[in-house]
Amino acid sequence: MDKCEAVLKLFLEALQADKTLTEVNDTTNEIPVGVSNRHVHLSQKDLNSLFGEGYQLTRIKDLSQPGQYACKETVTICGPNGAIEKVRVLGPVRSKTQVEILGGDCYKLGVTTQARLSGELQGTPGITIVGQKGSVQTAEGLIVAQRHIHMTLEDARNFGVSDGQIVSISINSLRGGIFNNVVVRANDKSALECHLDTEEANAMTVNAVSKITLIK
Amino acid sequence: MDKCEAVLKLFLEALQADKTLTEVNDTTNEIPVGVSNRHVHLSQKDLNSLFGEGYQLTRIKDLSQPGQYACKETVTICGPNGAIEKVRVLGPVRSKTQVEILGGDCYKLGVTTQARLSGELQGTPGITIVGQKGSVQTAEGLIVAQRHIHMTLEDARNFGVSDGQIVSISINSLRGGIFNNVVVRANDKSALECHLDTEEANAMTVNAVSKITLIK
Repeated sequence: MDKCEAVLKLFLEALQADKTLTEVNDTTNEIPVGVSNRHVHLSQKDLNSLFGEGYQLTRIKDLSQPGQYACKETVTICGPNGAIEKVRVLGPVRSKTQVEILGGDCYKLGVTTQARLSGELQGTPGITIVGQKGSVQTAEGLIVAQRHIHMTLEDARNFGVSDGQIVSISINSLRGGIFNNVVVRANDKSALECHLDTEEANAMTVNAVSKITLIK
Repeated sequence: MDKCEAVLKLFLEALQADKTLTEVNDTTNEIPVGVSNRHVHLSQKDLNSLFGEGYQLTRIKDLSQPGQYACKETVTICGPNGAIEKVRVLGPVRSKTQVEILGGDCYKLGVTTQARLSGELQGTPGITIVGQKGSVQTAEGLIVAQRHIHMTLEDARNFGVSDGQIVSISINSLRGGIFNNVVVRANDKSALECHLDTEEANAMTVNAVSKITLIK
């Protein structure tokens, strides 16, 4: 690219960046972060196969997203190369079973999958799940969670973004940086929170004092 | 900050960024990346305690940095909360034992440590290492590796950076972004390579086709 053109492009981007930063500061300058380890969402059918007919999940801790909770129950997930024990089940049951693993788990299990949003399971591989009373081999639903920001529609208006928009986040920490390809998930059932997995959080040393800022 | 001042500052940064990119393109527009899992460097004294008096490491694979190699030998590392088995030993032996773990390993082991450069071990905690013939409790040397770029002094001149300088890297991948606080390690014994750990690589989906660019 011609040098002057590149400088002008950067100047424009700088002007836009300034606008974004100002907007964010005018409304809310910080997004809370939630860090997820690998976990499983189960359908009632698969819950029955794993823990017994008509089994009900045991809530032990509410999560930040309304209605979501961690359960006492854990399962083992098994791939051709290995197994991972004590994978937490999250409730309530869903229409489809979904297993969310870390990038590094792919090597342990011997599987390949993709970064996907929760619920977007078409074309993803299956996995073997083992519970107290039995096991299931799912046809699909094994994903690495695509990083995303939950927010209300009002939050989205304040940030000037819309549901499904791809944004970046800046992380102010000891080993901070910027994550691109963060999906906005805006609806009336959400609480404002950026969801990262433990590998993403560890890579940026994200902790309770880290500040996450949205960049458009 | 005043808006105009902020725009001017960004303009200046844009000009500088343009200069950097041009320099990089004039010399080499890509930095190869090496991804490290947890591993151990041993002193001869600790090697003797773990594998027997006068034990010699068994080289199985040369690493990209001249003279460094992966060994057949593995050890178990143990903390108050748990153990991690099959941690690879890297050779040759060093003056001090150093255990490089992932951020997530801190939880498994039940330890707290810091991101440090290789060799900068003062004030870091120790850990229990178990080998075929015995175990050692080190007084220090447990670290999470600070991300860094090895390069020759000629590479450093070409990039316009110096040994010890803190830079950022831009990662062009499916889930890319920017890592800040990357340390330049320039000397005449190095080969150009950016070192990330597996959590950092997984967080950005770094793979064989990812492009890493230095940002000053």
